[in-house]
Amino acid sequence: MSIFKKIFKKSRSQEDGIFFDAIQKILGFSPNELNHYHKAFTHRSSGKLDTAGNAISYERLEFLGDAMLSSVIAAHLFNEAPYGDEGYLTKMRSKIVSREHLNELGKDLDLIRFVESKVPVQHFGENIHGNIFESLIGAIYLDKGYPFCEKFIQQRVIIPYVDISRLEGKVISYKSLIIEWCQKEKKQFHYDIFEDNAIDGQRLFGVKLSIDEKVIAKARATSKKKAEEKASQRAYFAFQEKMNKK
Amino acid sequence: MSIFKKIFKKSRSQEDGIFFDAIQKILGFSPNELNHYHKAFTHRSSGKLDTAGNAISYERLEFLGDAMLSSVIAAHLFNEAPYGDEGYLTKMRSKIVSREHLNELGKDLDLIRFVESKVPVQHFGENIHGNIFESLIGAIYLDKGYPFCEKFIQQRVIIPYVDISRLEGKVISYKSLIIEWCQKEKKQFHYDIFEDNAIDGQRLFGVKLSIDEKVIAKARATSKKKAEEKASQRAYFAFQEKMNKK
Repeated sequence: MSIFKKIFKKSRSQEDGIFFDAIQKILGFSPNELNHYHKAFTHRSSGKLDTAGNAISYERLEFLGDAMLSSVIAAHLFNEAPYGDEGYLTKMRSKIVSREHLNELGKDLDLIRFVESKVPVQHFGENIHGNIFESLIGAIYLDKGYPFCEKFIQQRVIIPYVDISRLEGKVISYKSLIIEWCQKEKKQFHYDIFEDNAIDGQRLFGVKLSIDEKVIAKARATSKKKAEEKASQRAYFAFQEKMNKK
Repeated sequence: MSIFKKIFKKSRSQEDGIFFDAIQKILGFSPNELNHYHKAFTHRSSGKLDTAGNAISYERLEFLGDAMLSSVIAAHLFNEAPYGDEGYLTKMRSKIVSREHLNELGKDLDLIRFVESKVPVQHFGENIHGNIFESLIGAIYLDKGYPFCEKFIQQRVIIPYVDISRLEGKVISYKSLIIEWCQKEKKQFHYDIFEDNAIDGQRLFGVKLSIDEKVIAKARATSKKKAEEKASQRAYFAFQEKMNKK
């Protein structure tokens, strides 16, 4: 098996090999046809055309990925919340697939590093992160079919982020959850706050949350409070995943 | 195989046997777990509860079916219209899954005959037809998984109804298409128009379209012109399917 893998890898260009490895790491399984993933990260400004002369842009795959994400999340909520009616399910899904949330998912995987574009990536708005997260899902569907798409969404969206209690608004502050948890577990915690302005000069605050002197989560936002909450949320999900694994 | 089927069927109540046969005919394959299909046709007024005490209503399955329909249609359009951008794909999909179209699909399968409700079905609005068409798709997903769901949508929505040229608005009048086709194929056609009022007294017109003295399509609408167009559209799709089969 590993010999075949080596031969397979050798036949690719070095650049594709790096891309293959990076995508494989993100997916948690091997891609078949790298071309789909290249398309998932091609901005229309690149001016690339397919063999039939159609412009290549991640936006078509984003449309496809959005649909797959919606149906996988719908099925998950349907099964997990048997008490919820149609209105509840619809509301919960829109919270999960909110623009803000998708942007966060795309950022966490640092997908923007793959974008091929003639426009500098800094010129894109915030939504580029979520859009290419969706186009990646579209590429997985084309490359590997629905079950893999479902598996990816399970691993990357549902397990680490979907907490129905939180979505129902039962969790108000992540900071208080973290403090409570640390007190219960007898752990030391510390929020290190510093100014960390954006390149364009916008005033931002950075926060490093340490638990037992280990940095657990970092975040940056327009206010100290927001940055603390964001870091706490990240820490909460990091721990929640660990707790689920037990 | 057929012996097993007989034993299987005998163990059901007669009523379930009839329901099983009807569902099988609609699906084009055997259902596994009839319970999902019963839920797909249960109106909340029936007051039924599941084993955990949650109210049973087709609306939850409608949410699920809507999501599956959207993703299957998205994938179909993605593949069939490689020239279309995200905006085009979104627009085409909303035409296919329009309320009006879904109602028509539900009506054509006469799904309303299965609805369990304490409210008389006549009291439901027009949308009940489309809603239970979607809940049926949800039930198929739960019962047989995504590939069967896809197969059903292919057979019942895409093949008979999805004509990209028509959706792009290139087809203006179905009546003129039928006339043109009959002239080309040297066939006799006749539109038989009659008054066919609704139970509540609303004035409606019925149309029977015959080709070579055989009734091909029927329709009813609020004006003669609309009824002719509707019957022509139905005849067009009936023929289109035949033509595709050649």
